[in-house]
Amino acid sequence: MSFSMSAEEQLRELKKGTVDLISESELVAKLKESSAKNKPLRIKAGFDPSRPDLHLGHTVLLNKMRQFQRLGHQVIFLIGDFTAMIGDPSGKNQTRPALSEEECVENAKTYARQVNKVLDPAKTEVAYNSAWFKKMSTAEFIRLSSQYTVARMLERDDFANRFRERTPISIHEFLYPLVQGYDSVALRADVELGGTDQRFNLLVGREIQKSYGVPQQCVLTVPILEGLDGVQKMSKSLNNYIAVEDSPKEMFGKTMRVSDELMIRYYELLTDITTDELSALKRDLASGKKHPRDVKVQLAKTLVTRFHSAADADRAEEEFRRVFSGGGLPDEIPVVELSAKELSATIDACELLVRLNLASSKGEARRSVEGRAVEINGERVTDSKMQVPLNVGGEFIVRSGKKKFAKVRVR
Amino acid sequence: MSFSMSAEEQLRELKKGTVDLISESELVAKLKESSAKNKPLRIKAGFDPSRPDLHLGHTVLLNKMRQFQRLGHQVIFLIGDFTAMIGDPSGKNQTRPALSEEECVENAKTYARQVNKVLDPAKTEVAYNSAWFKKMSTAEFIRLSSQYTVARMLERDDFANRFRERTPISIHEFLYPLVQGYDSVALRADVELGGTDQRFNLLVGREIQKSYGVPQQCVLTVPILEGLDGVQKMSKSLNNYIAVEDSPKEMFGKTMRVSDELMIRYYELLTDITTDELSALKRDLASGKKHPRDVKVQLAKTLVTRFHSAADADRAEEEFRRVFSGGGLPDEIPVVELSAKELSATIDACELLVRLNLASSKGEARRSVEGRAVEINGERVTDSKMQVPLNVGGEFIVRSGKKKFAKVRVR
Repeated sequence: MSFSMSAEEQLRELKKGTVDLISESELVAKLKESSAKNKPLRIKAGFDPSRPDLHLGHTVLLNKMRQFQRLGHQVIFLIGDFTAMIGDPSGKNQTRPALSEEECVENAKTYARQVNKVLDPAKTEVAYNSAWFKKMSTAEFIRLSSQYTVARMLERDDFANRFRERTPISIHEFLYPLVQGYDSVALRADVELGGTDQRFNLLVGREIQKSYGVPQQCVLTVPILEGLDGVQKMSKSLNNYIAVEDSPKEMFGKTMRVSDELMIRYYELLTDITTDELSALKRDLASGKKHPRDVKVQLAKTLVTRFHSAADADRAEEEFRRVFSGGGLPDEIPVVELSAKELSATIDACELLVRLNLASSKGEARRSVEGRAVEINGERVTDSKMQVPLNVGGEFIVRSGKKKFAKVRVR
Repeated sequence: MSFSMSAEEQLRELKKGTVDLISESELVAKLKESSAKNKPLRIKAGFDPSRPDLHLGHTVLLNKMRQFQRLGHQVIFLIGDFTAMIGDPSGKNQTRPALSEEECVENAKTYARQVNKVLDPAKTEVAYNSAWFKKMSTAEFIRLSSQYTVARMLERDDFANRFRERTPISIHEFLYPLVQGYDSVALRADVELGGTDQRFNLLVGREIQKSYGVPQQCVLTVPILEGLDGVQKMSKSLNNYIAVEDSPKEMFGKTMRVSDELMIRYYELLTDITTDELSALKRDLASGKKHPRDVKVQLAKTLVTRFHSAADADRAEEEFRRVFSGGGLPDEIPVVELSAKELSATIDACELLVRLNLASSKGEARRSVEGRAVEINGERVTDSKMQVPLNVGGEFIVRSGKKKFAKVRVR
């Protein structure tokens, strides 16, 4: 292989959408050495196999990996199965149950299937940290733990907050960043990537590498993507996500529900739009030259094309327009304006049906949902307790049964 | 075997010279159950094989072990070889170098030889914690570490002080109390003994046992013995110790040098004196009925008898009296009074020789010491930098060469 771009050109590319880069001069030096020796850099990113359902939040990181890959570097998709198999032994963190070895393998397959939508599988090294930690003795592990201090560990924001607020921190929680750091030693990572919430752990990796006498990795962080509500981090547990494996129809519909502001953020973090193109887009929206709905349709199509195909994107658009703009719908759909300020950021699905006059009571609304008769933007509502996000500028159509419709505009 | 004493009687014995007992009611319950089932309690005490030279400070703990042994219980002499083999991997603690397996075995033999002067070897179980920790996987170890919190670990006095003063604490230091605690799980300890400085670690053992679902141990601490200076903890590195393997002559001479106040403390912690006998002794000293020197001779003889034999004690006394009271000495020995208040708690050996007019300069004094010509209370001074303790009430004779003598009285 050979590198088509100079170190400086690569750096410019890599800095796009990056939050932290520690340090730029080190990365330039590594890139130069890599070019000179014709030796790809080793780019590590760790993933938790206990939550293998990837959503678009994860793809921000995957995009950065792909970028390195396209520049000719070696990407390592590290599955943290060792810690996943331990889980949270204190039992305090319910979202981190211990996984069996079989579950880890199964989840890793799930990952691979999804990740291959972004990364080039032929150029991706998959590693499991159990490979080295299963062989490590307790004595060696204690030696590893001597490489970092309590005070520095307590500098991590979440630890600092919990310590101040007297929320217990189990000692094993101090060990996990060291485990992650040692992974960088074992992998001889040149660069580690992660979300901004991983910044501390990634920096621990640099220290641990130094202690073990191997070259220190550069640390590069990417932003955490907001979920459909535009406020909280996109996550499965908050049900504000677009999954990589969502159907074209779901993906399209969910994208159309985001606020105009969040739409810009998604363009920035989830598409290949250049800085110049993004500025032009904002200008056109501000001047009214472009309508937000059209720009949102374009975003939705881009995402569906990326994770499915252009044909799927076209079909999803057609279907959306048909449902949303009249196809199969009565000509006159009542338009109800809801104020996101008066309500909270989300509204209970049954409450929404009552407000829109699509049900006379919450009980009736619940029965409609349970009878699978309710759809939002053509997407069936399956949970009567579902929280429907209300994003300023968002529009959606709610249907109950065959004949009852309402169009919602969030102001 | 059978227990000749009731639980309450045993408790009364065991409380003698004990500082902490957590808790008394638990210990009574354990003693009662032990009697009822005719099953000895398992009494654990841990020792660090990196410092196998026992001094009288250690014997305070050994005495308590012997007491349990005499009451019919099973004593476990635990050698912490696992942690000793790791040492202090951060390299900050120079007194804790990592030991090889061979050194641990060698040191354990040294321990056994010395310990048998106090404990009944036939009734002492010797255990090594490497037996279980070498087999423990890193995953299991992380689970162990989840059983305790950072905040509670930072409650330990020395950790709290270092944390406040920003003196680094390596994370492995948080792991050692957990290792010690797990030893109690592995040994199914009913009681753990230690010096008062071990109180925190011993209590961690209770928590860890609880987490592992085994009965919790009682914790019993004994005082830390002051060294010959009467101020600091007796320790080899401070050179203020009487070693278990000191010769009768050394043991006798060192005992005679302690202050009158410390003599009482040594009676209390190192002999089998009863509370009533001790009160009587103090009374007789206060009234002048007994002379401090005679009481000190008695203490010295008791100690030599204990660690050597009654005949050795008699010989040591004779020799001491001969040297100290005139045998082989000129009739007239100048008496020099030194004030411990004006000086520090110790005086440099060479400085002392100059002050006593036994040398005209420090250089001459140093040459005398190097020429093996200097003795204090008949004990040769081999280090010209030796710090001679000045204990109020203490007396000693310094000799330089064959003809020069001085008797020191510390005021």
